[in-house]
Amino acid sequence: MDYFYAPGRNHLFVPGPVNIPEPVIRAMNRNNEDYRSPAIPALTKTLLDDVKKIFKTTVGTPFIIPTTGTGAWESALTNTLSPGDRVISFLIGQFSLLWINQQQRLRFNVDVIESEWGHGANLEIMASKLEADASHTIKAVCIVHNETATGVTNNLATVRKILDHYKHPALLVVDAVSSICALDFRMDEWGIDVALTGSQKALSLPGGLGIVCASPKALEATKTAKSVRAFFDWNEYLKFYRLGTYWPYTPSVQLLYGLRATLDLIFQEGLDNVIARHGRLAKATRLAVEAWGLKNCAQKEEWYSDTVTSVLVPHYIDSTEIVSRAWKRYNLSLGLGLNKVAGKVFRIGHLGNLNELQLLGCLAGVEMILKDVGYPMRLGSGVAAASAFLQKNMPMIPARI
Amino acid sequence: MDYFYAPGRNHLFVPGPVNIPEPVIRAMNRNNEDYRSPAIPALTKTLLDDVKKIFKTTVGTPFIIPTTGTGAWESALTNTLSPGDRVISFLIGQFSLLWINQQQRLRFNVDVIESEWGHGANLEIMASKLEADASHTIKAVCIVHNETATGVTNNLATVRKILDHYKHPALLVVDAVSSICALDFRMDEWGIDVALTGSQKALSLPGGLGIVCASPKALEATKTAKSVRAFFDWNEYLKFYRLGTYWPYTPSVQLLYGLRATLDLIFQEGLDNVIARHGRLAKATRLAVEAWGLKNCAQKEEWYSDTVTSVLVPHYIDSTEIVSRAWKRYNLSLGLGLNKVAGKVFRIGHLGNLNELQLLGCLAGVEMILKDVGYPMRLGSGVAAASAFLQKNMPMIPARI
Amino acid sequence: MDYFYAPGRNHLFVPGPVNIPEPVIRAMNRNNEDYRSPAIPALTKTLLDDVKKIFKTTVGTPFIIPTTGTGAWESALTNTLSPGDRVISFLIGQFSLLWINQQQRLRFNVDVIESEWGHGANLEIMASKLEADASHTIKAVCIVHNETATGVTNNLATVRKILDHYKHPALLVVDAVSSICALDFRMDEWGIDVALTGSQKALSLPGGLGIVCASPKALEATKTAKSVRAFFDWNEYLKFYRLGTYWPYTPSVQLLYGLRATLDLIFQEGLDNVIARHGRLAKATRLAVEAWGLKNCAQKEEWYSDTVTSVLVPHYIDSTEIVSRAWKRYNLSLGLGLNKVAGKVFRIGHLGNLNELQLLGCLAGVEMILKDVGYPMRLGSGVAAASAFLQKNMPMIPARI
Amino acid sequence: MDYFYAPGRNHLFVPGPVNIPEPVIRAMNRNNEDYRSPAIPALTKTLLDDVKKIFKTTVGTPFIIPTTGTGAWESALTNTLSPGDRVISFLIGQFSLLWINQQQRLRFNVDVIESEWGHGANLEIMASKLEADASHTIKAVCIVHNETATGVTNNLATVRKILDHYKHPALLVVDAVSSICALDFRMDEWGIDVALTGSQKALSLPGGLGIVCASPKALEATKTAKSVRAFFDWNEYLKFYRLGTYWPYTPSVQLLYGLRATLDLIFQEGLDNVIARHGRLAKATRLAVEAWGLKNCAQKEEWYSDTVTSVLVPHYIDSTEIVSRAWKRYNLSLGLGLNKVAGKVFRIGHLGNLNELQLLGCLAGVEMILKDVGYPMRLGSGVAAASAFLQKNMPMIPARI
Repeated sequence: MDYFYAPGRNHLFVPGPVNIPEPVIRAMNRNNEDYRSPAIPALTKTLLDDVKKIFKTTVGTPFIIPTTGTGAWESALTNTLSPGDRVISFLIGQFSLLWINQQQRLRFNVDVIESEWGHGANLEIMASKLEADASHTIKAVCIVHNETATGVTNNLATVRKILDHYKHPALLVVDAVSSICALDFRMDEWGIDVALTGSQKALSLPGGLGIVCASPKALEATKTAKSVRAFFDWNEYLKFYRLGTYWPYTPSVQLLYGLRATLDLIFQEGLDNVIARHGRLAKATRLAVEAWGLKNCAQKEEWYSDTVTSVLVPHYIDSTEIVSRAWKRYNLSLGLGLNKVAGKVFRIGHLGNLNELQLLGCLAGVEMILKDVGYPMRLGSGVAAASAFLQKNMPMIPARI
Repeated sequence: MDYFYAPGRNHLFVPGPVNIPEPVIRAMNRNNEDYRSPAIPALTKTLLDDVKKIFKTTVGTPFIIPTTGTGAWESALTNTLSPGDRVISFLIGQFSLLWINQQQRLRFNVDVIESEWGHGANLEIMASKLEADASHTIKAVCIVHNETATGVTNNLATVRKILDHYKHPALLVVDAVSSICALDFRMDEWGIDVALTGSQKALSLPGGLGIVCASPKALEATKTAKSVRAFFDWNEYLKFYRLGTYWPYTPSVQLLYGLRATLDLIFQEGLDNVIARHGRLAKATRLAVEAWGLKNCAQKEEWYSDTVTSVLVPHYIDSTEIVSRAWKRYNLSLGLGLNKVAGKVFRIGHLGNLNELQLLGCLAGVEMILKDVGYPMRLGSGVAAASAFLQKNMPMIPARI
Repeated sequence: MDYFYAPGRNHLFVPGPVNIPEPVIRAMNRNNEDYRSPAIPALTKTLLDDVKKIFKTTVGTPFIIPTTGTGAWESALTNTLSPGDRVISFLIGQFSLLWINQQQRLRFNVDVIESEWGHGANLEIMASKLEADASHTIKAVCIVHNETATGVTNNLATVRKILDHYKHPALLVVDAVSSICALDFRMDEWGIDVALTGSQKALSLPGGLGIVCASPKALEATKTAKSVRAFFDWNEYLKFYRLGTYWPYTPSVQLLYGLRATLDLIFQEGLDNVIARHGRLAKATRLAVEAWGLKNCAQKEEWYSDTVTSVLVPHYIDSTEIVSRAWKRYNLSLGLGLNKVAGKVFRIGHLGNLNELQLLGCLAGVEMILKDVGYPMRLGSGVAAASAFLQKNMPMIPARI
Repeated sequence: MDYFYAPGRNHLFVPGPVNIPEPVIRAMNRNNEDYRSPAIPALTKTLLDDVKKIFKTTVGTPFIIPTTGTGAWESALTNTLSPGDRVISFLIGQFSLLWINQQQRLRFNVDVIESEWGHGANLEIMASKLEADASHTIKAVCIVHNETATGVTNNLATVRKILDHYKHPALLVVDAVSSICALDFRMDEWGIDVALTGSQKALSLPGGLGIVCASPKALEATKTAKSVRAFFDWNEYLKFYRLGTYWPYTPSVQLLYGLRATLDLIFQEGLDNVIARHGRLAKATRLAVEAWGLKNCAQKEEWYSDTVTSVLVPHYIDSTEIVSRAWKRYNLSLGLGLNKVAGKVFRIGHLGNLNELQLLGCLAGVEMILKDVGYPMRLGSGVAAASAFLQKNMPMIPARI
């Protein structure tokens, strides 16, 4: 007996954890294995090599850590910084806020640049702070690539340009949790020093892996970083990399096989095609939202996120009720509004291993829910707008032509 | 490497095999087992008891046979009839045709009553034949409850009434392959002598089980039925039923555990609720078809099938192209037109463990395909019609209220 | 709650169904699929090609049928013979008996050559019957390659030699259910006309597939064979082979993917290595039996089966009690004695995807059970004998050297 | 293609990760789910309640953390202690050494009490240190219940008695990674303040969960503990416990369902029966080792571990070769000797969901390997000794009587 059983597939449209493709579920359907046998190191080697490709780095060093995105944050910070270090951080939504809280608890001197929720990082203020920092007291710029709470994507290329403009040596530390494998991300080209993601986002795996990638400069910084660290210490990993056994402690072999399978699917589709698919699904979603007469929480087009759309509801509707009904009536899982936007937005995650008809099913569901809660709109209008775009723009499935 | 890989879920809308619910996939994810241990007989006993419930019989005897629907047909016929026996059979589409072919190959004297494809069984002709058959040369009336090729459902209650009216002792043998657990079906009430289904239809299992249920009168008929039979002989089953070991040969224990799991889900939802859900999804589909300006292959409302809708396309469109594009561009599996209606219809299966948003995703896909092949229609129109109906009529999920 | 739960792995040593390798369980862990899409025919084509390799035939035509071994028997007979045809059949144990029963029910004129259980087929009597049959009234010789009830393997090469010696045109029809992929089997070289196996034996799959292979001569025979057949008719398959869609009715796609996976494992190990492994495990088992002071049910070494060892117990012990205790105390599944040897033998199946330490665990279990039931023997003696042989003769695992 | 494929089951006898029972593999075979829906909190609540039972605590507060045992160590320490705090820690093998290293890196003042490897914790020295510590500078006693490297179990009841004797308020912090669900463990009765385990040990799950349980006194200590902590901060969990949503960051829902399933199996068997089974398998292993003429690395019987036996090999044998051959020839995974005992011991893990015949298969394998590497012993001797004990002492399987 399943206490919350509903017939048919659950429609999972939270912005993580996302749907796991069937071949990946299959790959993880296995008994434990001795991770000290030759098999797991051989597998791990391929993973470390291939993980670099999704970060678009050739010079970075990846760490696949049995943790969550929160742990990956801590890993990124404690390995490169010392207590008291001044770091610039942008407060633009719930996840950037949580990261800032962590930075403060890890005893950095956090120079917060706040924007209204729905806006991107204020890079002008960052520029002025960098300009003013001739003595290089700023040790790092920490930025969330894609703020999952508001559906806002920051422009990392511009951040790099500004840093370069001021020839500032601060490390560029990027939360790419909901962007890697979903958005255009270029670690080497954009001079990112630490980037990190989590397995349950666009990698379409269960939660349980935090994947962190460090530039040579970031690795160099570990030598002087005085933050206390143990579980998250990169040096432990590097020691075992040198030994060729790779793991300082027990990994989940199931997740490693799952990571292998999901990377295989991503490379089969082509990473750029995966990212283009995310762009296509996101655009379709935004067209539906527009057709419904609703607003995107992201205030400017340049910030629109291709992994999640945060939809503002009219003041007379409680967005929590939308999310609640979605689950209770439609077996549809949507994202809640968090903190400052609680009750004001609901979120449609459109990331990971997802296709057009899945999204249209979700949009059709959202329409019915909007009707349920008394929002005046025409059923089918959003689906029509989305499918008009998709029908024109989606490719044939290459393997099936 | 998957040769036909496409991102996201496959949208499986052929009228069988259908989507398997995740709890059922899980239940089948297991090693083999000795089927002569006490465990498998204990499991089988619960299955035989519970299978009767989905046929709505208390007096029937079920046989769970490692075969397909075609094998179940043969089982139903050879156990109850003798070569040369006169049987009435209705030709109304591809599956009734295949069954008639089988009846002929099994050397029965088949009295075929043909209708145009898209029409139901012609019960007036049956009535006149029964009336004329004072000497009871007709040994059986064979009828397909739901003709999957044309989406036509026959009225079994009327068939029974006519037989009763003429006090005719012919056996009533029913192909309920695509109706059990999808349509209203009442074995005892309608005086059905043999009914049969297959695991891959509304039971939402893999193919591999033919389930046949025999009335006491049908069991009695086996004593004189002279058709040669071996693998399909009910007596072999009955012998092992008496022994309490149940299996004359090796069953798939995986399918037995799967059958247990799917029955549990069906009973949790409530069989009548399952059937009501099928009615709701079918109605929504028909409303979409109407909104597109297309016609149902079933020519009268009384014949409309709640498990599959066969959609007629205009003469200038080849329905095969629709099905082909569905798979090649949208990862959507639709049913082809078969035989007489090849190229003229495509079929949307809406049976099994399926929910509203899955269906709406499919309908949105069909709209885009219709656009692709040059059919003039308004995107979103079908989805709008379907979701207007669903939004008004679908219940909250009981387990989540 | 599992009603028969026991901690740890079940030790499955019945002579089928056997253990499924984890990669094969994984391959079957999937949703249904439209078997009319291009994917399943493409998969099926590889299966039909590769299945021929395990029969060691290049000229044969394989049929993969959704049925059991019993159904495969019926398929082999009804497609090639006519009612009243005289067939020679050997009664040497329970499975050959069941096949003979089937032959009789299918209305052949069965010329039974009986041996004591524990003996192989009496080929001298066959020879004399063939010699006497100048008019070729004998249409087929039906023989079970490996009688699973007594652990007796017949010599098929000799059968062929005798047929050739008398230039007798009778079809050679072979039940290879428990021999394909376990014993040396050479369809073409031995001039076998029909051979058949089941998925749950040395193919290490769930039950549900009967695989039948027909020589050109057997295919020719279908043209005149008058047995009534429908579900099992090869012509249906051949029609769909020509169409390139392969399936006359719904296959279990899960089993097809499983068959692909198990064949891949077999070819990776090497079919001859697989057969050699069976020989090694069987020899080890027999050495253990000898060390325990027990007798093999197979009366001569030439008949010893490499897939199952049937062990005779002293008259004061009921072998049923051994099998019962195995399950109730040791989570070990052994084969019962059947029919004439009920209570007199228990059976150790050593076929399928199995390795040496699994077998030794089983043998250690049998020792404890023998102790339980009062048989005087030295614990460890059988394991010692078996492991002495294995330690000398087993190879390194090629993939791990 | 599996690069390291070997036929048959892998025999997994490292002391973690251990075999996952099939029902638990099944329970984890699922898509992702929104962990903010009502389902996951409802599930989590049952887990938190039931996890307390395996720690034998009613007053403790459990934390189920997406991490490994190493992370659980860090969680235990940083939530209760401050940098510079004096802690007593026992160095008796590789895992206690690693924990001490971590304690030092977390900047505690570690007062190490070293024993020879193979000996248990020196509790007399602890006693004298406590006695001398009238001012209570010692803030915690950290002890590994079961040292997995040497197969040594420490006596926690005695530790508690000594602390009580000196009325010393130091926290008692216990690594129970390889003891919970395997050895007798009584958190409340023994006054343990923090205990921790990992999912991949006797819980028989994949790696990925560190489970930590805190006494009320330990929770009180968090209020003053000044260690920097973020990911591992219990307060984050407690905040979400109060909200009823339970998770400060994304858990693996698969592992949660797996934990539910494995706890269900443990309670079905009975926790005390599970522990008794571990005792029985361990005793059998030790009897085999003795029969082989080899020595236990654990130097006194009072320290013998019931989860792992570390076996000393003669000086002329390299134990690494034993472990290597086990994998390369027998598909058997044994534990290596680590650090000081590298090359000198190999380890047989006998923990988790394991039964007698599995162990005997392993022991038979070890015998053949010992033969391979030239150790003079009689094949079968260890199996005989083990099975003599087991045959006398193992119970019938309750569910099957």
